Amino acid sequence: METATETTLKKLERLLQLETSEELISFIDGLNSHEIVYIMSHLNREDQTQLLTRLTPENAASLMEELPEQQAAEIVEDMRAADAAAILNEMPSDEQTDILWELESEEAEAILSLMDPEEAADVRRLIDFDPDTAGGLMVTEFLSFRENQSVRQIVADLKRQKEAYARLHIKYIYINKANGEFAGVLQIQDLLLADPETRLSEIIIPDVITVPIDFHLERLVDFFHTHDFYGVPVIDQEEKMLGVVLRKDVLEAWADQTSFDHLESQGIVGGEELRTMPLFARAKNRLSWLSINIILNLIAASVIAFHQDTLSSVIALAVFLPIISDMSGCSGNQAVAVSMRELSIGAVKSGEAFRVWMQEIGIGLVNGLSLGFLIGLAAFLWKGSMMLGLVVGGALAINTIVAVSLGGTVPLLLKHRGVDPALASGPILTTITDMAGFFLALTFASLSMAHLAHL
Amino acid sequence: METATETTLKKLERLLQLETSEELISFIDGLNSHEIVYIMSHLNREDQTQLLTRLTPENAASLMEELPEQQAAEIVEDMRAADAAAILNEMPSDEQTDILWELESEEAEAILSLMDPEEAADVRRLIDFDPDTAGGLMVTEFLSFRENQSVRQIVADLKRQKEAYARLHIKYIYINKANGEFAGVLQIQDLLLADPETRLSEIIIPDVITVPIDFHLERLVDFFHTHDFYGVPVIDQEEKMLGVVLRKDVLEAWADQTSFDHLESQGIVGGEELRTMPLFARAKNRLSWLSINIILNLIAASVIAFHQDTLSSVIALAVFLPIISDMSGCSGNQAVAVSMRELSIGAVKSGEAFRVWMQEIGIGLVNGLSLGFLIGLAAFLWKGSMMLGLVVGGALAINTIVAVSLGGTVPLLLKHRGVDPALASGPILTTITDMAGFFLALTFASLSMAHLAHL
Repeated sequence: METATETTLKKLERLLQLETSEELISFIDGLNSHEIVYIMSHLNREDQTQLLTRLTPENAASLMEELPEQQAAEIVEDMRAADAAAILNEMPSDEQTDILWELESEEAEAILSLMDPEEAADVRRLIDFDPDTAGGLMVTEFLSFRENQSVRQIVADLKRQKEAYARLHIKYIYINKANGEFAGVLQIQDLLLADPETRLSEIIIPDVITVPIDFHLERLVDFFHTHDFYGVPVIDQEEKMLGVVLRKDVLEAWADQTSFDHLESQGIVGGEELRTMPLFARAKNRLSWLSINIILNLIAASVIAFHQDTLSSVIALAVFLPIISDMSGCSGNQAVAVSMRELSIGAVKSGEAFRVWMQEIGIGLVNGLSLGFLIGLAAFLWKGSMMLGLVVGGALAINTIVAVSLGGTVPLLLKHRGVDPALASGPILTTITDMAGFFLALTFASLSMAHLAHL
Repeated sequence: METATETTLKKLERLLQLETSEELISFIDGLNSHEIVYIMSHLNREDQTQLLTRLTPENAASLMEELPEQQAAEIVEDMRAADAAAILNEMPSDEQTDILWELESEEAEAILSLMDPEEAADVRRLIDFDPDTAGGLMVTEFLSFRENQSVRQIVADLKRQKEAYARLHIKYIYINKANGEFAGVLQIQDLLLADPETRLSEIIIPDVITVPIDFHLERLVDFFHTHDFYGVPVIDQEEKMLGVVLRKDVLEAWADQTSFDHLESQGIVGGEELRTMPLFARAKNRLSWLSINIILNLIAASVIAFHQDTLSSVIALAVFLPIISDMSGCSGNQAVAVSMRELSIGAVKSGEAFRVWMQEIGIGLVNGLSLGFLIGLAAFLWKGSMMLGLVVGGALAINTIVAVSLGGTVPLLLKHRGVDPALASGPILTTITDMAGFFLALTFASLSMAHLAHL
């Protein structure tokens, strides 16, 4: 079965063969964002570049805006600097900055020197800001007037510059004092309902909440949860307005952050991996985490090596050690997932590890007894030894309590110490629970060796 | 160290003791959304209910809107129906529906019968829609006029009803034809810039994209990625406008969906778990997944049981079996995470398993050889046996290729068959890679038994 999108791809490849670009442009114009990500992920670099240079810069810019930042940056990296500059000129300031931020500084410089000087100056100012702060997220394109102007003047100006303003998606108009300090926000509907001679200062909303340049993404998410605003003005230390952080950009950055946390928790480090990236870069990113993990695994398994004598007398235990390891890991990871979620919505603070531990111990008891009973029953049914069932069931029951205790608290403790819990919680958890599980099972076995030997 | 939020909690508990509610109301009014989630997650049910009933219904409604839906629904469930109805009256239609959707139908009915009849009628109409579709996500509060009216008439009406309209956060005005069919959208700025005698039909944007009532969340996310709109009108089969799906509601629902997928992939099933929920409900939700997992683990471990003779001759292998299991699981889960991410942004379609497989095999080779070499070296250094190194290293190398192949393709294959990949990919992956890993290591060992015995 050929999907709609495969057809899209074939059609595109045909259009790329044509001499003229008109059909190509109107074809790309009709695609939605998923289709754009799809085709760009299926073209080779040469075709990607050919496509972008044959579109108008405006069209190429709106296509690039649909792609994940890293992918967009990689494509820009391989384009001629002049072509890249023409496309970047047409993007909003936050997207320009995001892409140039991903490049090596010489490459970024080469493109900047070929861009529109005004756009380039904006980017140079913005690129120093952390992309996860108000400064990095804001757009610098906004509409502003002085508070001593009248409604009539503004409306006349809006009418005169209708087309230039159309690109700004005006939702609010920002008003400054005569000395350049930020004064407040004007809603279009208030402009509509006011008498033409009214001064702006009379109808603006003066006590507008603003944020400083280093206001962090997490706090912006919180801000937009609390306030149903379209955007929030960003103010410098002299009370001058620098830009607007839009709600949509904050929510998109946050969704990306959540995805990256998930990728990180599975050991995809150093940002996103897309399968269009070069093989060795992808392998290296995954391996950097795996190679730490294999060392942790060897440390955990050394517990087994120290009990080799016990194991050689009760070889049946070897069947249960991987089960104890895997099941404890699962229980612990459930607790990690709940803690990460509670941290992200604010239901728990990083300092409350003790409280969370108390809440996990109950679950550890219930689930530990249930799982211990199940695995103990399996051991009993297999070898007919009640003692073997008690040893493996007891070890799993106790280790489940260990696992949920660690899983619930480790993310909080890491966060409290400023370590990223998405990346580190998993490996720490599995190493310790593996060691504890192997130790419990093998120690219980050696204590009851008389009843177990040669099972 | 006492955090700011603990102080908040203590202050709140003091205010709850007071006779009058004024201080309490202004205190709650000043909290941000994280602080609200925090305090509600730390109060017992009795205090939660007391707090909500002492606030004004408007205040209580805006507090409830900050909470995760499930938590809000549980609180509503335990309130007197009349109190709940008063609070729900003050919420936008989509939030009313989300909360009542979570309740048993009799409980929801009891509350609906006490709500404002108009609000209740709205909810009854909306509650039949799947919450992940346009019908379930839309708000029914919007501003609409007929296209044959003039700009002057609309402006006069807006001035007259200023206060009633203020609640609607007007960004767009929706225009209907004389027969009630949807005609188009009017931007406030166009109202401002037009001549007062202009008919609305002349200044509306007529070719507005609309969505049907069953348009799915995933497609809405895609829609708002492609189109920089504040909201999109929802239309029934007779072309009548039913409501507006707002971009912010779509992005929030999507962020929730992503979090839930992550929770599900770690075995938190049946929706979100918050630690304020009752112990046994939490334990049961986690256990339902763990108990399937333990059976899968027993199946995988049965491979070891079948090779017990090999193992008792080469007891050193028992140290490496859990490592092979864990490392293969990690490699496979990395591939799962990349596939889930690529599916979600549209870089890959569910029918492209073969293509993804080809892209994973290269990584499997590079990482398999690296990891196999590391573990083989460890085995050689420990026991001085080259053959033991080859057996465990070879098994891990091959099994890494198996793991990334499965990890990359299983999510696509599941999605292609309509199964939720977040929930099922992990258990399927680990079971098969465990079996393959144990089989490879034990078979290689039995084939080279002459060089391995009694290590």
